Amino acid sequence: MQIGMIGLGKMGGNMAERLRRAGHDVVGYDRDPKVSDVGGLSELVERLNTPRAVWVMVPAGDPTRATLRELGELLSPGDVVVDGGNSHYLDDQKHAEELAAKGISFVDVGVSGGVWGLRNGYALMVGGEADAVTMLMPVFEALKPEGEDGFVHAGKVGAGHFAKMVHNGIEYGVMQAFAEGWELLEATDLVTDVPATFKSWRTGTVIRSWLLDLLVRALEEDADLSELKGYAADSGEGRWTVQAAVDHAVPLPAITAALYARFASRQEDSPAMKMVAALRNQFGGHAVSSTEGQHAKGADSPGADVTPPVEAQG
Amino acid sequence: MQIGMIGLGKMGGNMAERLRRAGHDVVGYDRDPKVSDVGGLSELVERLNTPRAVWVMVPAGDPTRATLRELGELLSPGDVVVDGGNSHYLDDQKHAEELAAKGISFVDVGVSGGVWGLRNGYALMVGGEADAVTMLMPVFEALKPEGEDGFVHAGKVGAGHFAKMVHNGIEYGVMQAFAEGWELLEATDLVTDVPATFKSWRTGTVIRSWLLDLLVRALEEDADLSELKGYAADSGEGRWTVQAAVDHAVPLPAITAALYARFASRQEDSPAMKMVAALRNQFGGHAVSSTEGQHAKGADSPGADVTPPVEAQG
Amino acid sequence: MQIGMIGLGKMGGNMAERLRRAGHDVVGYDRDPKVSDVGGLSELVERLNTPRAVWVMVPAGDPTRATLRELGELLSPGDVVVDGGNSHYLDDQKHAEELAAKGISFVDVGVSGGVWGLRNGYALMVGGEADAVTMLMPVFEALKPEGEDGFVHAGKVGAGHFAKMVHNGIEYGVMQAFAEGWELLEATDLVTDVPATFKSWRTGTVIRSWLLDLLVRALEEDADLSELKGYAADSGEGRWTVQAAVDHAVPLPAITAALYARFASRQEDSPAMKMVAALRNQFGGHAVSSTEGQHAKGADSPGADVTPPVEAQG
Amino acid sequence: MQIGMIGLGKMGGNMAERLRRAGHDVVGYDRDPKVSDVGGLSELVERLNTPRAVWVMVPAGDPTRATLRELGELLSPGDVVVDGGNSHYLDDQKHAEELAAKGISFVDVGVSGGVWGLRNGYALMVGGEADAVTMLMPVFEALKPEGEDGFVHAGKVGAGHFAKMVHNGIEYGVMQAFAEGWELLEATDLVTDVPATFKSWRTGTVIRSWLLDLLVRALEEDADLSELKGYAADSGEGRWTVQAAVDHAVPLPAITAALYARFASRQEDSPAMKMVAALRNQFGGHAVSSTEGQHAKGADSPGADVTPPVEAQG
Repeated sequence: MQIGMIGLGKMGGNMAERLRRAGHDVVGYDRDPKVSDVGGLSELVERLNTPRAVWVMVPAGDPTRATLRELGELLSPGDVVVDGGNSHYLDDQKHAEELAAKGISFVDVGVSGGVWGLRNGYALMVGGEADAVTMLMPVFEALKPEGEDGFVHAGKVGAGHFAKMVHNGIEYGVMQAFAEGWELLEATDLVTDVPATFKSWRTGTVIRSWLLDLLVRALEEDADLSELKGYAADSGEGRWTVQAAVDHAVPLPAITAALYARFASRQEDSPAMKMVAALRNQFGGHAVSSTEGQHAKGADSPGADVTPPVEAQG
Repeated sequence: MQIGMIGLGKMGGNMAERLRRAGHDVVGYDRDPKVSDVGGLSELVERLNTPRAVWVMVPAGDPTRATLRELGELLSPGDVVVDGGNSHYLDDQKHAEELAAKGISFVDVGVSGGVWGLRNGYALMVGGEADAVTMLMPVFEALKPEGEDGFVHAGKVGAGHFAKMVHNGIEYGVMQAFAEGWELLEATDLVTDVPATFKSWRTGTVIRSWLLDLLVRALEEDADLSELKGYAADSGEGRWTVQAAVDHAVPLPAITAALYARFASRQEDSPAMKMVAALRNQFGGHAVSSTEGQHAKGADSPGADVTPPVEAQG
Repeated sequence: MQIGMIGLGKMGGNMAERLRRAGHDVVGYDRDPKVSDVGGLSELVERLNTPRAVWVMVPAGDPTRATLRELGELLSPGDVVVDGGNSHYLDDQKHAEELAAKGISFVDVGVSGGVWGLRNGYALMVGGEADAVTMLMPVFEALKPEGEDGFVHAGKVGAGHFAKMVHNGIEYGVMQAFAEGWELLEATDLVTDVPATFKSWRTGTVIRSWLLDLLVRALEEDADLSELKGYAADSGEGRWTVQAAVDHAVPLPAITAALYARFASRQEDSPAMKMVAALRNQFGGHAVSSTEGQHAKGADSPGADVTPPVEAQG
Repeated sequence: MQIGMIGLGKMGGNMAERLRRAGHDVVGYDRDPKVSDVGGLSELVERLNTPRAVWVMVPAGDPTRATLRELGELLSPGDVVVDGGNSHYLDDQKHAEELAAKGISFVDVGVSGGVWGLRNGYALMVGGEADAVTMLMPVFEALKPEGEDGFVHAGKVGAGHFAKMVHNGIEYGVMQAFAEGWELLEATDLVTDVPATFKSWRTGTVIRSWLLDLLVRALEEDADLSELKGYAADSGEGRWTVQAAVDHAVPLPAITAALYARFASRQEDSPAMKMVAALRNQFGGHAVSSTEGQHAKGADSPGADVTPPVEAQG
């Protein structure tokens, strides 16, 4: 079928390519004229036969909002717009309403797959009305991986991005669990070959997974990760997962721990821990260093004299 | 090679069977005479040629301790004992010392694989001296899954059980992350087909894994898990992981959250939350129910009269 | 000075009373005619001299929004409106803008004190422009507790409710810490007099506090809280604190733990723990009960026969 | 009454002084001859009338163990030994048993009060048999603060240190809650006077407490704590609280969060976050920086061109 693709970066460009390889007619627009098939959105819309299908693959937030608004001006009743970016599910509902007022259908698609998607296909989580989803099925079939999985019509508008958001929330928690386990293995001197230990887990264990495979690859490249900083960005979706959980009164302790660990990783110095240090200073008087001395590991060694006095006690 | 196997339950029995299928000569002992090859440990020891190899597969704690002590009396210098149960890594070090005093080697093996191990092989994490491990390699080769992974000599005595403990700690965190994601998906009415959503994630996503496969299977058997209680036991290994982390000053927030969620799942009623309720009672006076009324969702609907008064405010 | 008070429930009614005792002229409106001085908002506005000061003490959300909108129609440029309810700080900013368009000032006040406020005064956290705050100082002076503390002009519009929100977030964390400590003391049989232990902490310890005093009172009324359910509601402010932290990339693990513990306390059964149980079922085969047997405390006792076999191992 | 005091550092020295001011006869021993009344433990024991009372105030672990062992050799049946240091409650039980074998009573006392104790008294949590506690009551009366609180006979041997341990665990949680609230207030630009906000909370609020008073003092000395590092040591008692909770299957999420925040504060760089960064590298290909670009706040501003393409999506 024919489809317009707006945004031909690494994601949209590869998706357009995968669609073409599957025999679809893709008209692409990008602000970079070198990769764009058309000069602007109005030319894109003119080039498509009605009812048109347009897939928007631009960053979430203002760029998506502005693109959808412009499409709302240019498209006709019966056309369908897909938002394949990382939009918030509540934004989907606003966008769907605005477009519905003009007779235009809206479908939200959570897309997973990254740089491997061109070859292996993209996992798709779709939200929207059945009619619009049905119309787009040839496109989804071409984009998704082979086999029976990798695609779901998860529910009404917003469900696609909600499902993708939860997928990413789970991903945060799983990555954190592996990372904590790695830190603990590194902290002991019992286990002398940590990379081999992780590698051995790839077969026959409960935790075998694609993320474990990636972890093993990372340790093959840098056995103790000494070349990396402990700094982890967070995409909006981890934050949205926690905020959605709070809205629904769902406790999410492990996923939230993963998000907070990322927040902390980006702080030069923890403000909260400054305050804890300040409070310890206050109630220990100014004898803080001797308090530390008392509690420090190894400070307990008696030596010849078994009875050093206690210098401070909270 | 020849090996003695002590404890022929589901684990030890299947392992003995897998060893025999691989051509090894297994002499098994179990307290149940119907499955035992010998009448007791002394007969087992007599039946084995020196240097002997004996694999102990009995519950951690006192049973393992007592078995190892009895073997210490019966075995000869040069023999090797394997503890394949779920022992604590600090116990391994004590057991190794006691046996070393008699010239007997000790190897600890963390075994993963459960009921699938007989057919697919057991993932093995091994701790001990190189000589003893080398002597046992034919046995490890027969027990481990096919392929290059599924076995690691992780380090000195204790390293095998330490690695297995951390594996299980990671498993706790990963299971918790999936479980939290499932709860959040169930809590929204946007996503109308939750089982299909998880099923779709099996291909092309970041979180594809064996645990996801199991989760999909569980939802195929009971789409909303309505037949299950939210009650999760914990094996010692989750607790030991957290305690080892505290000993090493390693923060483990996601794995600990998983452990605590299991603790809480087994409480009829949370004592801590009784105290929170008691405190709220105290500072809200006895007007608690109207406080709730104020904050409850939906209590804010104005109706005809837009100005209901505030009844209480903390 | 003269002030209108809208909402004469437990909070607004007591505050009106405290203002009157301090010599202020309060015109009160409530939907309940028995306690109202006027028949409606327009009569209230008529009764006040310009520039008018009106304090709104109605539930957050729609009631406050509707009341402020109606006041916007009735008041004149130069008048000041106070929102003393539990509104969200982002709503304050919208309300202030709408009223500013009509020349009306807006001040947000976070009020703490509950049922003791009438006698002891109310802690006030105030946000808004200096002029409006200055105009209202006589009212604040009358409402606040005696002494130098209990009042702060924390910043611009929204700062009052933001500060109150954070106060409540801290309160969640502090209550949770005491509740956890209580649960742990109850869980050991070493400490045989738990209420006396808490009572003893009221003097000379680091954790002496008003909440500890309340806790001691609660245990005096019911020594083991056996008459309470472990069920704790949460006001919007705990949720808003966590969501604001996520917006600002601030890690808030202890306060979030407190919020999640309240969420969990209101669940009949934990959905997430159902999923954990389901996963354990899957990878343990259906031999779950024997797995439990293995790991359960006390299952390790050897008895006469020291070598029971291992039935299952994950 | 007469009492021996071993360890005349800041704690033991001040306690000896407070006892003398109350009229008790204190014979002090310290390894520093300048402050010691006697030349060694045997001289100390000779100087005391039977039945003797000896208070040990030396660091927990080996120094306490060695001192108690030496006293066991020197003292007589009917004597009483007090361990007033920060010992683990399980060590108390071992020590009590060893001394009981020689007819010597053992009492464990958790002592709180720090540098203010000399003037204000020390909060005491006591574990041990009634007879021994009764014999020591004059000493406890002199050490404790005035008023009815500040002393508890919490239970049998170990109960004193268990109660003190839980007190400190609660302290961790309360400090963390205040620290998190402070960090969040600092993170917003709405609240322009953070120190004044905390100061205002000292009266009339739910969270008024001694720790809040200390926090206000700390901010008076350094308004934004810019002179401090976010580095917080942890005494053994926070760790023991978490480990005791895990032993008793008690979930302790807020207190554990506080402990983990301290662990993390002492890491140059988080190992776990290195692994999270490594995993993100792996699944984002090497296009990590553009992924960040996509998700970064502010990257969404559309400018003249509303349709930048999506560069990567996880």
